[in-house]
Amino acid sequence: MATETERGAVATYIPPLARIDPKQFGLCVVTADGEIHSAGEAEEAFSIQSVSKVFALTQALGKIGDTLWRRVGREPSGTPFNSIVQLEREQGIPRNPFINAGALVVADVNLAGHAPRVAIGELLRFVRYLAEDETILIDEHVARSEQETGFRNVALANYMRAFANLTHPPELTLGVYFHQCAIAMSCRQLAMAGRYLMLGGLLEPGGARVISAQRARRINALMLTCGHYDASGDFAFRVGLPGKSGVGGGILAIAPGKASIAAWSPGLNENGNSKLGTLALERIAEATGWSVFSPAEERRA
Amino acid sequence: MATETERGAVATYIPPLARIDPKQFGLCVVTADGEIHSAGEAEEAFSIQSVSKVFALTQALGKIGDTLWRRVGREPSGTPFNSIVQLEREQGIPRNPFINAGALVVADVNLAGHAPRVAIGELLRFVRYLAEDETILIDEHVARSEQETGFRNVALANYMRAFANLTHPPELTLGVYFHQCAIAMSCRQLAMAGRYLMLGGLLEPGGARVISAQRARRINALMLTCGHYDASGDFAFRVGLPGKSGVGGGILAIAPGKASIAAWSPGLNENGNSKLGTLALERIAEATGWSVFSPAEERRA
Amino acid sequence: MATETERGAVATYIPPLARIDPKQFGLCVVTADGEIHSAGEAEEAFSIQSVSKVFALTQALGKIGDTLWRRVGREPSGTPFNSIVQLEREQGIPRNPFINAGALVVADVNLAGHAPRVAIGELLRFVRYLAEDETILIDEHVARSEQETGFRNVALANYMRAFANLTHPPELTLGVYFHQCAIAMSCRQLAMAGRYLMLGGLLEPGGARVISAQRARRINALMLTCGHYDASGDFAFRVGLPGKSGVGGGILAIAPGKASIAAWSPGLNENGNSKLGTLALERIAEATGWSVFSPAEERRA
Amino acid sequence: MATETERGAVATYIPPLARIDPKQFGLCVVTADGEIHSAGEAEEAFSIQSVSKVFALTQALGKIGDTLWRRVGREPSGTPFNSIVQLEREQGIPRNPFINAGALVVADVNLAGHAPRVAIGELLRFVRYLAEDETILIDEHVARSEQETGFRNVALANYMRAFANLTHPPELTLGVYFHQCAIAMSCRQLAMAGRYLMLGGLLEPGGARVISAQRARRINALMLTCGHYDASGDFAFRVGLPGKSGVGGGILAIAPGKASIAAWSPGLNENGNSKLGTLALERIAEATGWSVFSPAEERRA
Repeated sequence: MATETERGAVATYIPPLARIDPKQFGLCVVTADGEIHSAGEAEEAFSIQSVSKVFALTQALGKIGDTLWRRVGREPSGTPFNSIVQLEREQGIPRNPFINAGALVVADVNLAGHAPRVAIGELLRFVRYLAEDETILIDEHVARSEQETGFRNVALANYMRAFANLTHPPELTLGVYFHQCAIAMSCRQLAMAGRYLMLGGLLEPGGARVISAQRARRINALMLTCGHYDASGDFAFRVGLPGKSGVGGGILAIAPGKASIAAWSPGLNENGNSKLGTLALERIAEATGWSVFSPAEERRA
Repeated sequence: MATETERGAVATYIPPLARIDPKQFGLCVVTADGEIHSAGEAEEAFSIQSVSKVFALTQALGKIGDTLWRRVGREPSGTPFNSIVQLEREQGIPRNPFINAGALVVADVNLAGHAPRVAIGELLRFVRYLAEDETILIDEHVARSEQETGFRNVALANYMRAFANLTHPPELTLGVYFHQCAIAMSCRQLAMAGRYLMLGGLLEPGGARVISAQRARRINALMLTCGHYDASGDFAFRVGLPGKSGVGGGILAIAPGKASIAAWSPGLNENGNSKLGTLALERIAEATGWSVFSPAEERRA
Repeated sequence: MATETERGAVATYIPPLARIDPKQFGLCVVTADGEIHSAGEAEEAFSIQSVSKVFALTQALGKIGDTLWRRVGREPSGTPFNSIVQLEREQGIPRNPFINAGALVVADVNLAGHAPRVAIGELLRFVRYLAEDETILIDEHVARSEQETGFRNVALANYMRAFANLTHPPELTLGVYFHQCAIAMSCRQLAMAGRYLMLGGLLEPGGARVISAQRARRINALMLTCGHYDASGDFAFRVGLPGKSGVGGGILAIAPGKASIAAWSPGLNENGNSKLGTLALERIAEATGWSVFSPAEERRA
Repeated sequence: MATETERGAVATYIPPLARIDPKQFGLCVVTADGEIHSAGEAEEAFSIQSVSKVFALTQALGKIGDTLWRRVGREPSGTPFNSIVQLEREQGIPRNPFINAGALVVADVNLAGHAPRVAIGELLRFVRYLAEDETILIDEHVARSEQETGFRNVALANYMRAFANLTHPPELTLGVYFHQCAIAMSCRQLAMAGRYLMLGGLLEPGGARVISAQRARRINALMLTCGHYDASGDFAFRVGLPGKSGVGGGILAIAPGKASIAAWSPGLNENGNSKLGTLALERIAEATGWSVFSPAEERRA
């Protein structure tokens, strides 16, 4: 399906990720009526990295609601995922919860005065609940490796602490953040976990309500405008679905009312998003008419 | 419906706009099946200003297709509509076609070696065709006023010319731009003109094809991620529809497959978007479930 | 003395300058006691370009005194000579009078409601007076060429006009600026013209006072901190003298109480300053101990 | 001599400094021939803070010479002392050794694989040698306080570590930096310690050579262009002497061949430099003609 060069390059700044075989590719589509379609290595667990920001944001909104938006913005950043420039200009308020700085504020909210392992345990339980799978784990090796090499994130955390936009000691907030990024999931688990965003906040059709319909819409909106860092506009242009990528090569994409889709391939494009994963989602959207920017007739066609 | 202070402030930097009565409000919804619902001063013509960028972009894509994207990006800018900072960092390539710099590149494409009045005439005919209304005019008084006071746009144009990203003398490109911004339309005319974006590229249901379905989707995507300058994320978060605003107080919003909506109220919020117009669209989206981020069931509800 | 590659590259963005033979080199040192030492093509006239900013600043301070500093700063910019970024951040107030934006404000002050040719005539008479040479002329061919290609300066002028920090129509202020840059002088004429900065404001030892001693000191200070754009720190570090460079390859350097020095060689380094000119001044400063950062004993040695 | 409001505000971000009485003022002038003139509280020890960067830079140049300039620039920054923006744009290379980021690189050089207390001990011995005073100490209370609250410096250090421009664990480099800033000296001790910069590198007239004449000149040049953060240009304009300020209210100024001057008053202006200290130095330079931008005759007058 793709030559080596078309697959992009594996992220190298986190050593355990650099050793992943870039040839792998997995895909899982869970539709609104509960069907599950898998392809490739859809059962292989990978480091979800920044895709975790979606679940952590949902958790934080559950804790403090819209007061979160006093500490983090809702606008695309126009800068790479780990940029510190915008923070200086805007006094320590990150542009949105999906750039690293914003995710650190979210982690700080989730920490809520507890020990990092409490907050992490809570998030892990939430993800297992969403995916209906108790086997999901954190890869401690990846977490430790990030803790040892994540100087830029340490810089971001301390920088926001200087503006009093972190409330805990930076090393504790960073502990939560590095562990949430190290959650390992398969495409199947990830697509299952994303169902509540497809279903207006319900765990499954007619099932338990995870969050309100309004909140589900709004998280989708944030994923569409901010989910792919400085390539969010391009993803919306080409794929037309809310999505969130991670440097582990995973992408969670939501077709509201239609499907929750997880794609994974470790090779990244120049913006740090999975190259094959993006291409696969582009083709799926084209074939199904699931783009949120299509008229319903076209979508059905 | 709203007190004076809730209406925001009228744009003052273009003198003729500063004299508009801020109390006015108009709304028009054209649905997919051709029904037209109007409210308030829906027949009152106003200066569409940056809403014209949607039509000019459609025109330019018709001329040179996707080669346009070599000269202008597709990413949200993270900066105000008239920022010049990003241009310096990115060597004269504007971030997207909806900030002023990007719209100047689009105007330069539409100029295509002709006299400015030729390009303007062509755009005006296109808008009349879309709206099925031959009475749409350019407000020469507004155009002249912008030409006399638009120093920042003159700066942007000359700046890009220095990077060879304008191909005509800046004053000619600016002539096209200032005139396209001065097109005067009513809510009804604007909602009619936006139908092709609701209908996957068709002029009316079962009617002539204006652009391909893919191009309609993509313009919608750009409107959602970039249509409200540095408040695009917030508009997506609150309203959930592709939209394009203008400092004249107009907003065109598209619910794909559902409706083309024009709202107008001259009072602006701090980001330069119509305050009441945005609020009206938020309520319409909430009431109808038209947000592109809702599941279909919820939208029908 | 230097191979081709060591000479740097001739400025190409102003066509007439691009045709200059880069092999040329001239030097003239006028000492405090009036001796004149010349070397190389010291009688060859070249386009002084930004060196003119020193004389224009002196002229503007004579007109409006320290109120000038309300419209332009006195700090190094940390950015290239034609950057527009800083202007946006600082609301149209240029960082110093030696970057292009600052020099445009100075030109606007010198214009003072008159026709551009009046302001230009006044500056030319001032430079002739300083150099005691009535043959100094403006190269109209260079001036016209800059007027045709100086899009970035047109952008800067219009941008400041948008912030109301130009008081005349931008094209008039630009006319003054382009002509002052096109003054053609030889090293000998330039070194003569710089004497007042060496002599605490006097035209010659015991001669007429051009400006106060304090103003002469302050202009020297500005030349040292801001005279070489983004390489001002390096010039101070290596040469240790107040200096002002131009893209025509000329540099005027002042050793207060010791010498006024003009060096010229058209090849430029990556910061847009004469490569051989800078090297020559570094060696002269080393050999004479004229650096303002040396103790007097060392200077005498 | 000054009312309360003229004295400026004491730095508050380091708690022990916030408790200093702002009414204090001290001054000491050591001339080239060894005379010592003191005024006010010239024997009172204060936290020298960033003035220490001059001595640390001298120490680092002694260790690795001009290879230092591969890791730190020599240009004014155009931004505040603790800005992180420039670092992102320029890939972790600080603009100069006197902004905090640059001083952290210098501290990293001085650390040289040893324990922080070894590097600190070495710097303290160097300063005592320069001042000929073995009683100079580090205020451990201030050092500890900075270590607890210096989040921005922690951010800067980790940020540069991410670019591999720190070679030690950031916490060790920060340990050195926080302790060097906490050196406590009186005006008399500081003026004595600055003599080598006045005397072309000699400890005293005819005495031991501390550094080469060229290096002394160059450190003076850096002090003049970069010694007062974003007010360096203004200090050069008003005072005309190489100087280095600290947020403790101290300033070391050098009149090459004439005097080494230390001024201290804890109230700071909006740029973080001592308000009364700057004013005192301006008056001294005016009265003595010591400005490096004056001709010798004027200086003698």
